[in-house]
Amino acid sequence: MPTKGPLLVITAHPGDFVWRAGGAIALAARDGRRAVIACLSFGERGESASLWRGGLGLDEVKAVRREEGEKAAAALGGEALFFDAGDYPLVETPELTEALVALYREVRPSVVLTHAPADPYNIDHPVAGEIARRTRILAQAAGIPGGEVIGAPPVFCFEPHQPEVCDFTPDVLLDITPVWERKLAAMQIMGAQGHLVEYYSDLGRRRGVQAKRNSGPNLGLPAETFAEAYQRVYPQVTTELA
Amino acid sequence: MPTKGPLLVITAHPGDFVWRAGGAIALAARDGRRAVIACLSFGERGESASLWRGGLGLDEVKAVRREEGEKAAAALGGEALFFDAGDYPLVETPELTEALVALYREVRPSVVLTHAPADPYNIDHPVAGEIARRTRILAQAAGIPGGEVIGAPPVFCFEPHQPEVCDFTPDVLLDITPVWERKLAAMQIMGAQGHLVEYYSDLGRRRGVQAKRNSGPNLGLPAETFAEAYQRVYPQVTTELA
Amino acid sequence: MPTKGPLLVITAHPGDFVWRAGGAIALAARDGRRAVIACLSFGERGESASLWRGGLGLDEVKAVRREEGEKAAAALGGEALFFDAGDYPLVETPELTEALVALYREVRPSVVLTHAPADPYNIDHPVAGEIARRTRILAQAAGIPGGEVIGAPPVFCFEPHQPEVCDFTPDVLLDITPVWERKLAAMQIMGAQGHLVEYYSDLGRRRGVQAKRNSGPNLGLPAETFAEAYQRVYPQVTTELA
Amino acid sequence: MPTKGPLLVITAHPGDFVWRAGGAIALAARDGRRAVIACLSFGERGESASLWRGGLGLDEVKAVRREEGEKAAAALGGEALFFDAGDYPLVETPELTEALVALYREVRPSVVLTHAPADPYNIDHPVAGEIARRTRILAQAAGIPGGEVIGAPPVFCFEPHQPEVCDFTPDVLLDITPVWERKLAAMQIMGAQGHLVEYYSDLGRRRGVQAKRNSGPNLGLPAETFAEAYQRVYPQVTTELA
Amino acid sequence: MPTKGPLLVITAHPGDFVWRAGGAIALAARDGRRAVIACLSFGERGESASLWRGGLGLDEVKAVRREEGEKAAAALGGEALFFDAGDYPLVETPELTEALVALYREVRPSVVLTHAPADPYNIDHPVAGEIARRTRILAQAAGIPGGEVIGAPPVFCFEPHQPEVCDFTPDVLLDITPVWERKLAAMQIMGAQGHLVEYYSDLGRRRGVQAKRNSGPNLGLPAETFAEAYQRVYPQVTTELA
Amino acid sequence: MPTKGPLLVITAHPGDFVWRAGGAIALAARDGRRAVIACLSFGERGESASLWRGGLGLDEVKAVRREEGEKAAAALGGEALFFDAGDYPLVETPELTEALVALYREVRPSVVLTHAPADPYNIDHPVAGEIARRTRILAQAAGIPGGEVIGAPPVFCFEPHQPEVCDFTPDVLLDITPVWERKLAAMQIMGAQGHLVEYYSDLGRRRGVQAKRNSGPNLGLPAETFAEAYQRVYPQVTTELA
Repeated sequence: MPTKGPLLVITAHPGDFVWRAGGAIALAARDGRRAVIACLSFGERGESASLWRGGLGLDEVKAVRREEGEKAAAALGGEALFFDAGDYPLVETPELTEALVALYREVRPSVVLTHAPADPYNIDHPVAGEIARRTRILAQAAGIPGGEVIGAPPVFCFEPHQPEVCDFTPDVLLDITPVWERKLAAMQIMGAQGHLVEYYSDLGRRRGVQAKRNSGPNLGLPAETFAEAYQRVYPQVTTELA
Repeated sequence: MPTKGPLLVITAHPGDFVWRAGGAIALAARDGRRAVIACLSFGERGESASLWRGGLGLDEVKAVRREEGEKAAAALGGEALFFDAGDYPLVETPELTEALVALYREVRPSVVLTHAPADPYNIDHPVAGEIARRTRILAQAAGIPGGEVIGAPPVFCFEPHQPEVCDFTPDVLLDITPVWERKLAAMQIMGAQGHLVEYYSDLGRRRGVQAKRNSGPNLGLPAETFAEAYQRVYPQVTTELA
Repeated sequence: MPTKGPLLVITAHPGDFVWRAGGAIALAARDGRRAVIACLSFGERGESASLWRGGLGLDEVKAVRREEGEKAAAALGGEALFFDAGDYPLVETPELTEALVALYREVRPSVVLTHAPADPYNIDHPVAGEIARRTRILAQAAGIPGGEVIGAPPVFCFEPHQPEVCDFTPDVLLDITPVWERKLAAMQIMGAQGHLVEYYSDLGRRRGVQAKRNSGPNLGLPAETFAEAYQRVYPQVTTELA
Repeated sequence: MPTKGPLLVITAHPGDFVWRAGGAIALAARDGRRAVIACLSFGERGESASLWRGGLGLDEVKAVRREEGEKAAAALGGEALFFDAGDYPLVETPELTEALVALYREVRPSVVLTHAPADPYNIDHPVAGEIARRTRILAQAAGIPGGEVIGAPPVFCFEPHQPEVCDFTPDVLLDITPVWERKLAAMQIMGAQGHLVEYYSDLGRRRGVQAKRNSGPNLGLPAETFAEAYQRVYPQVTTELA
Repeated sequence: MPTKGPLLVITAHPGDFVWRAGGAIALAARDGRRAVIACLSFGERGESASLWRGGLGLDEVKAVRREEGEKAAAALGGEALFFDAGDYPLVETPELTEALVALYREVRPSVVLTHAPADPYNIDHPVAGEIARRTRILAQAAGIPGGEVIGAPPVFCFEPHQPEVCDFTPDVLLDITPVWERKLAAMQIMGAQGHLVEYYSDLGRRRGVQAKRNSGPNLGLPAETFAEAYQRVYPQVTTELA
Repeated sequence: MPTKGPLLVITAHPGDFVWRAGGAIALAARDGRRAVIACLSFGERGESASLWRGGLGLDEVKAVRREEGEKAAAALGGEALFFDAGDYPLVETPELTEALVALYREVRPSVVLTHAPADPYNIDHPVAGEIARRTRILAQAAGIPGGEVIGAPPVFCFEPHQPEVCDFTPDVLLDITPVWERKLAAMQIMGAQGHLVEYYSDLGRRRGVQAKRNSGPNLGLPAETFAEAYQRVYPQVTTELA
């Protein structure tokens, strides 16, 4: 089995990758894999309420969110890229599409993470996920110029904030226990949304309990397991059922 | 990672395990794992039309189907058990439930395969799947007497004959290329349903193409890949996204 | 194209065939086809509230419902059979199963009508539909003794009383305009549920408007069209898209 | 019953109409009906990988795909129109909308075929289907200038390449046996995607078997039947259940 | 419990609010609450066929629809606003988005009504509903300039014209009996679509019967109850189950 | 508006009503309403693992579970009834059906709470919910002897342990803040499943946050809100949208 390649995470806003995929990023980094995080916007309008209430202007809000995002990415071992495509609403444009195709072809990910298709509480998340899934297909097409076409990396949707009302059914529980401290550290960096640290610590613990409850006798998960939930877009390809 | 344990396959009729899960059984056997196949009935009424038309009586039909099933299981490297619970309709009874709980606790499978929840063309398949899933839960309960409780082995539903009208969406494609010849040999043993060999060879090839189309650059599937499709009942628990 | 064969309608209670499939029955009768209506119960407990409130005993209630059902069937041109299997709850038994397999094999229907899979307001309707679909499969099996096996007649679910909450999506709109007067006459016979005549006349008119709205330029439906809605269980097989 | 009118097929790329609706087109042509095929793009970027790898430029790729498409359409007895709206991504524009409304009003189809709503492997197919369904409604509106409004021709979605993961449930199986040789000839013309001939021959045979398995005793399908699967967008309107 | 605030209704065309939400508007007006109706277009192209056939020009059609809409709104006790964003197709634009965010922040609704997500017979209704739901979220965001952010008013989708084929499952039945006469008067004003008065009177009565059938013993609905059906977008928040 | 009547809770095992509906029970009791809890079994086999591991026999296990259940019910202000119908598997029998119809008719509930239709981790929960919904319909039927028929009380499904994999979408969030201490006390009584107190306290807080996030400006929920999630079986009937 060849070495695993890079991880590519495509999110609408900088916070998303921390809360929802921080464990997967830290695991990849731990294994010496490249972990590239593409933040399509800074979440400057839709997810920075406390900064606006603090009187900051648009550029200042963006700067704060960028800095937070970079620090959190570093804490996880990943590299954050910002596409500044605007949020609330995030819109698919030819320029953004082209940039993401180029990114796919440069990074050549072996795994892609992004938002799930539905979220009635957030208008950018479904759009970012759709862009991520569409540009992956474009990057596979020989007729799209610029760089070498990629293969078909599996795509995982990370868990929305309120899965029950987003039609999100977890079909993968990823054990992130070995890197839980790194995820916790990254979450604590996200000052603008600090109240979420406890929320996502609880979630990590809850998904961990479920991981243990759903694993056969042989996986050997630790007593306190932390996990992240994901949903596949394409079938898993495997050489063994487990 | 500990060694994988036994495989348990629970089917309504003897043919099912050959067409739909023969590759998974042969893979387990190749790896030195025990592969136990529980046929709840002989398919004596619902899947033996050619035998009836040949003028055989009920006991003769059962005997033929048993012999076929045993030979096919042997060709795959598995062991077939027959519960003779009757087919068309297969009915859940306390006796069958008790026998299957005992089987779960004796075999202690690390993976379970069975029928998917819906099949508008076959009345026994959904019932057998439901029985398999229910008795697995009973076998986990400390309050059910007889033997030691089991853990929580993952359950995979194998592909129905007409997946599109059975609400079956493959979420796992299992590469069975290394054991394809064994599956083919087992299929050829199933004389009563011989016209299906071509059908399921085509299906194996088609699912193989999809496996290649859906695998990232690192899995390295062979030029001609054969695969079987499965659908998970519970979330996958994993230490790595792939 | 060969002549169409008999129509078989399997319902939980005598009223069902009148309100929900009366038009289809009358159309078959008009075309000289046999139309057999199997009422699994008399609806004696669940759909005869006014009779009970009128002080009748169980046998009297059954007798009234039988008489109504026979008259309504006659008005439509069909023949009603009563299986007296009990209602509220209607239960699948080996005896009922055997009787229905025999019926399928005797009638040899070219079309089958029955209840849809879900109805949160009625506990017998889904059960009757399930029995109808299961016994049709049994009647096809060479291993089930008694009579000659049947082919695969298409199955249509007729419209539940409140389709929106029964997950019922009409996929067939049957023009019953030529026999509307016969359906109206049959509905008027159903004294115990007389308040439904207006309800189902409105529905017939509404489905008729939809039939016109959904038909291409060539069907030539009349100015006032009446229709009944159905949902297929199996794919339509056709030699022409229309 | 009046004579059937023209068939209108709206596809994203030239290949689509051959693989997925070639039988329906050839049937219409055989019956002397006009069969118009609107290819919204040439599939120049997303479905011409072998041409690009052969070193052709954009215009050359388009020319090859146009020629192939025209030849295949002719082999089926249809006429191909190319809208050159660009692929990967195909985008809905006011100009394309206007052109399609004009097409609907000129052709005045009695049946419309197009792509199904979902395909996680292709970004243009769902868009083309959406455009086809939306412009049909616009063509019905008296307030949209240009030509005479049309009626409500039924719309059928043809089968995606991987129906199981596209939420595609066949509800119509069209017997294309009488024109199978024509479809085969048209498929063999599609040089750029030649590996698909075997794939779609197998599919035609498989859907044919299902057509026989699902037809009542009276349809009289031949021993070797070929079929294409479709899914309705609107309810079928009929004067007879069958 | 504080006094209820304004009602905001966002529709694609002027007729929509009358047929589908007239009762809710009249109830709010009766209680002294402001009822603001935002008509995104005049329905000038898609819902004014009789005016076009009468030879009117675009501006005249708009003027007639505006007048009708204003009169109907007045009859209900609401105030109609027209955004003239164009119909068939209605398109989301930055200008329309900005105007609606401003409207949300000015009206500060305690309840929002709009179209449901799907309607295969109308291309504007789903778009209008999507715009209404998206702009509500934007109006909640501190980073969107202009006015004070709003809270999270519940959103109800009103009933499409053909609920069964729009995947619309009523989960709220609103008793509008006290204001039925006002709804009837408003419906009668809608000259261009006069044939719908009977249709929606029947529907009101039918939903009223269902309201009675689904209410516990304590709601005390009148003998003849009229109702409108709605579907919630977000969970109901309540201090008591009822 | 008349005074609210009794609350009837039907559960498979004694623990269920505490964890999942304890707040609703305590609210009813606070308001002076009768709250009757029907435990169909003692959960003696499926939910008493620690007792079995402690060496108790069947009768002792039942006795412990009964005592716990009675204490917890008392702490909430409700009365627990035990039907001792057996668990793992819980089976619908004529005797149990009759007893529950009699209970419905004696209690005459204005609200019913029970299990949701699906739970892949528990075989009794869906069965208990099905029994509860079916017997409610039987209790409404004039033809079922014994007592006076009931009306149509609304039915709410309480939240399963893992809602995301049970197809459970909360559509009602019940504010239970005023009785949170009572629910907490009742949870602490459930010694055999004590590890769940923290789990359900977290859940209560999480649903409380969502209740605040989804409530309009006028509901005035407290700073720390606790809530329970429910899913309706039938449409809500109301005189006001909120």
